[in-house]
Amino acid sequence: MLAPILAVEALMSGGQLPLNLKFLFEGQEEIGSPQLPGFIASQQELLACDLMVSADVSQWSEEQAAVLLGLRGLCALQIDVRGARSDLHSGGHGGAVQNPIHALVALLDSLHDGSGRILVEGFYDDVRPLAESERALIAAVPFDEEEYCGRLGIRETFGEAGYTTLERSWARPTLEINGIWGGFQGEGVKTVLPNEVHAKITCRLVADQEPKHILGCIGEHLRRHTPPGVTVSVTEQDSFARPYLIPADHPGNRVAAEVLQELYGRAPHYTRTGGSIPICRHVLDTLGVYTVNFAFGLRDEQAHAPNEFFRLASFRRAQRGYCLLLERLSRAKLGS
Amino acid sequence: MLAPILAVEALMSGGQLPLNLKFLFEGQEEIGSPQLPGFIASQQELLACDLMVSADVSQWSEEQAAVLLGLRGLCALQIDVRGARSDLHSGGHGGAVQNPIHALVALLDSLHDGSGRILVEGFYDDVRPLAESERALIAAVPFDEEEYCGRLGIRETFGEAGYTTLERSWARPTLEINGIWGGFQGEGVKTVLPNEVHAKITCRLVADQEPKHILGCIGEHLRRHTPPGVTVSVTEQDSFARPYLIPADHPGNRVAAEVLQELYGRAPHYTRTGGSIPICRHVLDTLGVYTVNFAFGLRDEQAHAPNEFFRLASFRRAQRGYCLLLERLSRAKLGS
Repeated sequence: MLAPILAVEALMSGGQLPLNLKFLFEGQEEIGSPQLPGFIASQQELLACDLMVSADVSQWSEEQAAVLLGLRGLCALQIDVRGARSDLHSGGHGGAVQNPIHALVALLDSLHDGSGRILVEGFYDDVRPLAESERALIAAVPFDEEEYCGRLGIRETFGEAGYTTLERSWARPTLEINGIWGGFQGEGVKTVLPNEVHAKITCRLVADQEPKHILGCIGEHLRRHTPPGVTVSVTEQDSFARPYLIPADHPGNRVAAEVLQELYGRAPHYTRTGGSIPICRHVLDTLGVYTVNFAFGLRDEQAHAPNEFFRLASFRRAQRGYCLLLERLSRAKLGS
Repeated sequence: MLAPILAVEALMSGGQLPLNLKFLFEGQEEIGSPQLPGFIASQQELLACDLMVSADVSQWSEEQAAVLLGLRGLCALQIDVRGARSDLHSGGHGGAVQNPIHALVALLDSLHDGSGRILVEGFYDDVRPLAESERALIAAVPFDEEEYCGRLGIRETFGEAGYTTLERSWARPTLEINGIWGGFQGEGVKTVLPNEVHAKITCRLVADQEPKHILGCIGEHLRRHTPPGVTVSVTEQDSFARPYLIPADHPGNRVAAEVLQELYGRAPHYTRTGGSIPICRHVLDTLGVYTVNFAFGLRDEQAHAPNEFFRLASFRRAQRGYCLLLERLSRAKLGS
């Protein structure tokens, strides 16, 4: 244990790096990294490496570390339903013509059954079943359903039968309506049949679902279920991420787990997140290297919300953690 | 024919009225006449009369008059669906909890079948079946389906099987979603599970549906169909109208038809409108008298829209029409 700590002290006091580092600053993650794949593809020699380390995602708590094994992928679309040339008076035309809102709610309701399972033909075809070993890793992560509901302010969790709450949010795909709007939204009453109504949808994807293929399946489902009397247009949106998985025993993870054990004084959980970080899969696909997510954010720090913060103690822990990580990685066999 | 025309000329040039008139100026019709029922109920002696004549609604065309036999009633409600305490990230929670938009579209889609028939238990219970004589009057009104679709910019009409388009829009009840909103409505993508979503609904009602009873049926349906994981609240809104029907052969209508025959040189159509004018039924219920709608608006005059107008020729025709109407009514037996 002595040598690495000495190396860390040396590194922190102006010593030499034990390996070569390249920095890639990704500033587009929150908008789906539209230009990143092209950049990575065109700069493969510049970016060539043995492993990527990302400071995104978080630890489990101040006392408990976690090694991240999976991220879900993403695809997105917008649905626009149009009826008459302009809004219509419901007295003059109600009952005579299709109401675009009725058509849209029928279309959207056709996407799930009452238990939350997705009814789009082909949606689950490429989903790799969860192995018993994967389910065991997820089951080993402590999760208090009651605490979760209390924190969110809901009475109960909800979703696809046969999976635990963590399995559903980490390792099962979703099709979520993110927004819907059309017609009268003010105070009181307006007897209008609106002539258009819209909805936004994103899917979280898991291995081995392909974003473009899933968009195709949804588009086909919507075409087949379009009610009479309206025109439906489906626009695929420019936010894609393929799902990402890294083996628990990847050499990079083994090093990260060892460092986290040392920093927290206990073994890390092996977790996933239901979110998406497109660069992890881009780099794997293009440069052939995995990404270790080694990050020190915590879940109560209001990510993306007002008063977002980061603990001073986490800066200190992260500095120490990264020094240890670099030192250990320099001596690990990363396999490339 | 000589006497009435002389009477009209006398009336138009400053002669005596052939009967007593009381004027009631209704300025709340567009917001559902919230204070009118109370006013009418408290002023029954002041308002006592043999017949009400209203200048609302319209004629069929510049060449063709119409006698109005029916107006639909109205009731209104708002649905609010709430999930978690705040919006949630779809990466962190998608698949684990109910999405309020999914719950709302399931709830709204449960209100109609695919043909537009309303599935709310009890909704049709009090609907008086259309008599053959009523269907014959509606069928006698010329209606060009293709012209109608072309004017509205739709490919096809839509609605409950077994009824013509005019029957559906004049004499069958509806349940229309007038507006829906919740979640992300901007450009691009936002992976949010919104914590609330809303919809506005109005129903057009026909005899003998009661607005309050129908609201009760819908509320009960929504309670029974509420999906798990969300809270649904239903707010009844303060816009009510009971449906209104006047017999084709009511003495007031017989006089109106005679005058219109004279003004247009041909027999009037017997029509309805799918809209609502609450005062007609209020006056019938409270004062026990029917209302003859005697009006000279035309359908292309952009009612409620920019550049609304009224033809100068219609002013002249209406002046002559009202003089004839008052003169004839003064000699008719109105039965009270």
